[in-house]
Amino acid sequence: MELPTGFEFAGLACGIKRSGKPDLALVACPEPAVAAGVYTQNVVRAASIDWNRDITPTDQFRALVVNSGNANACTGRQGQEDNEALATAMAYRISAQPRSIAVLSTGVIGRHLPMDKIKPGIDSLVDAAEHSLDGFQRAAQAITTTDKNIKTVMTQLRHAGATVRIAGMAKGAGMIGPKMATMLAVICTDAKIDPQVAQEMVRIAAEQSFNRISVEGHTSTNDALMLLASGAAGSAVDWNQLEARESFQEALNQACIELAKQIPADGEGATHLVEIRITGAASDQSADQIARTIAASNLVKTAITGGDPNWGRIVSAAGYSEQAMELSRTRLTINGHLLFDQGEPMAFDETSVSAAMKNQFETQIDLLVGGGPGTARHWTSDLTVDYVKFNSEYTT
Amino acid sequence: MELPTGFEFAGLACGIKRSGKPDLALVACPEPAVAAGVYTQNVVRAASIDWNRDITPTDQFRALVVNSGNANACTGRQGQEDNEALATAMAYRISAQPRSIAVLSTGVIGRHLPMDKIKPGIDSLVDAAEHSLDGFQRAAQAITTTDKNIKTVMTQLRHAGATVRIAGMAKGAGMIGPKMATMLAVICTDAKIDPQVAQEMVRIAAEQSFNRISVEGHTSTNDALMLLASGAAGSAVDWNQLEARESFQEALNQACIELAKQIPADGEGATHLVEIRITGAASDQSADQIARTIAASNLVKTAITGGDPNWGRIVSAAGYSEQAMELSRTRLTINGHLLFDQGEPMAFDETSVSAAMKNQFETQIDLLVGGGPGTARHWTSDLTVDYVKFNSEYTT
Repeated sequence: MELPTGFEFAGLACGIKRSGKPDLALVACPEPAVAAGVYTQNVVRAASIDWNRDITPTDQFRALVVNSGNANACTGRQGQEDNEALATAMAYRISAQPRSIAVLSTGVIGRHLPMDKIKPGIDSLVDAAEHSLDGFQRAAQAITTTDKNIKTVMTQLRHAGATVRIAGMAKGAGMIGPKMATMLAVICTDAKIDPQVAQEMVRIAAEQSFNRISVEGHTSTNDALMLLASGAAGSAVDWNQLEARESFQEALNQACIELAKQIPADGEGATHLVEIRITGAASDQSADQIARTIAASNLVKTAITGGDPNWGRIVSAAGYSEQAMELSRTRLTINGHLLFDQGEPMAFDETSVSAAMKNQFETQIDLLVGGGPGTARHWTSDLTVDYVKFNSEYTT
Repeated sequence: MELPTGFEFAGLACGIKRSGKPDLALVACPEPAVAAGVYTQNVVRAASIDWNRDITPTDQFRALVVNSGNANACTGRQGQEDNEALATAMAYRISAQPRSIAVLSTGVIGRHLPMDKIKPGIDSLVDAAEHSLDGFQRAAQAITTTDKNIKTVMTQLRHAGATVRIAGMAKGAGMIGPKMATMLAVICTDAKIDPQVAQEMVRIAAEQSFNRISVEGHTSTNDALMLLASGAAGSAVDWNQLEARESFQEALNQACIELAKQIPADGEGATHLVEIRITGAASDQSADQIARTIAASNLVKTAITGGDPNWGRIVSAAGYSEQAMELSRTRLTINGHLLFDQGEPMAFDETSVSAAMKNQFETQIDLLVGGGPGTARHWTSDLTVDYVKFNSEYTT
């Protein structure tokens, strides 16, 4: 598997994080490229989000700078000025316009960026940029905060004799909630795609993937998913049209789902990745709301942590989702074990179901809620003692 | 302070709980009394809730039986039959109609009631019933499940020379969520109130109190608040009219607020009671939604657990509540310390604010979100390691 052509990557530590871990990343395009993005729906937004919303979609994109360790959110006028100074410094360094530079920030809310550390960091970042898997992984590392693992995806798509490549990176282990655009994620492709088409594609992909995950349901101030398209693959296929577009959309959706699932799988303190599948709802939207409500329940999450087939918590969470539900047709299985059917509790062996839940990292919840056509999938983490310990001691 | 006249109470262990703790309670009226209630809005409802919704408001109320240790929810047709058999057994024992008997159940979802234990328990309960503080406290004890403490309130109201008394009990430490009617709570008064007036009064009181609390936001299948009015005070005042009604409503609201706050204060694993006050919202409803969103955030709850003045979590939670908010007018204080004002972070001494949070059981969050007239209060628990431990190991 190869990286998409037309991109250079770098990641390094410039001193934003006291731990000395990597905290500055670069995804650069030597030639102007297309960039589109979807961003948090939180009305309290980071300065970088307002900046990116303003400059994308564009076909003049040259570089994305990402800093971790500081969200630059709730930082007032100074925060906006710092963000613009950061973009301007990068633009100057690569002889581009400031509006061709996108910025993403992630970390603690309410503190000003240490510009004295970031500005020299940008010089080193540009020097280090390279089209290599090492560079890509260093960038993926430098965008993380509380993540245990880096999150990447690489795939390629063949269509009518043409080949284009897709590579993505994401971060996120806490403050992950649905109803957002997404968490920090960047997808690079060497397909040639128009800005407006890229914008629509990234919106659709986010809806199917990053908008379907949660850790604790807290929508961040800094969420963003960006699609960068260099066009450097130079194929004869027009990816903006017809079947080629559909093929690319499907490949993009799958790449985003694969990347998105890595976030709750690495959720703060998580010991289980939970997939919730809803069927029989009034509509897909209704199914999605039921799935989100179950995913947001601490009682459901802690039951999964403990390998406890306490299915009443799942059914009752669906019950307060404010969506239509026919209890007499409701059926619940956990990891394939039937626990509740047609409104009646089923006899089952608690010990063996509990053991199955404990021994599998992935917990599969399937809930049929009626006779409707609506379906949805959602991925979340369980809730553990480590999550609470970790988040009781984050800033102080 | 005296108990309202016209009531008898009992509480005992009949064997529903394996621990041998009290699990059956009685609130009985020797003469027909008024009963009104508000019940869970969860579409997945316990059999007892459907029964009570059907028989209240009424002026023929004779007894309320409460069992703890088993919710009798998601138990299908058998659950309905068990609930009716329970009411019928009590009715037979006190020579009343089954429809004069209210039932409340709380505990694990999805298991059938052990009727062979409950039926003899009802006989003992009637034998033990007495108009005494001891009986009242035994009843309050027998309705609890995971509660550390019993939750009661006693007050009296003097109006135009007349005196009426109010006594209430509540249970609840987990599966406590807003948008419900309430958790299990019973308010007794010896004021004479008409059924429809009692129904309206209890609805208003719930809105101000039990609907403003949460532990983890999971709306139970069994929530109920009942107002029982014996009329035995026999005063000349008509409590259904004008100022007397207003006075009673105010006393009822205050009693319900006092009782409701005891629930998150005793929340599973809780180390802090958190009061959230929102001002400046577009409307009271909007303020309420902002308060609920903050109260539901695990990141906010864990920050309070750790005594961490990580105010960005509070402001960002308000930001995704889907309510209007003017960041440039937003002001946040925690326990009186100003942390964020007019969209800008304030300089503050983290060590002293953190110490103040750690040393006080009550944490006070005040958030001004704009120039509107809307205000709301909400009470919740923090989220601790003990909550997670406890709920990972509840049924199995």
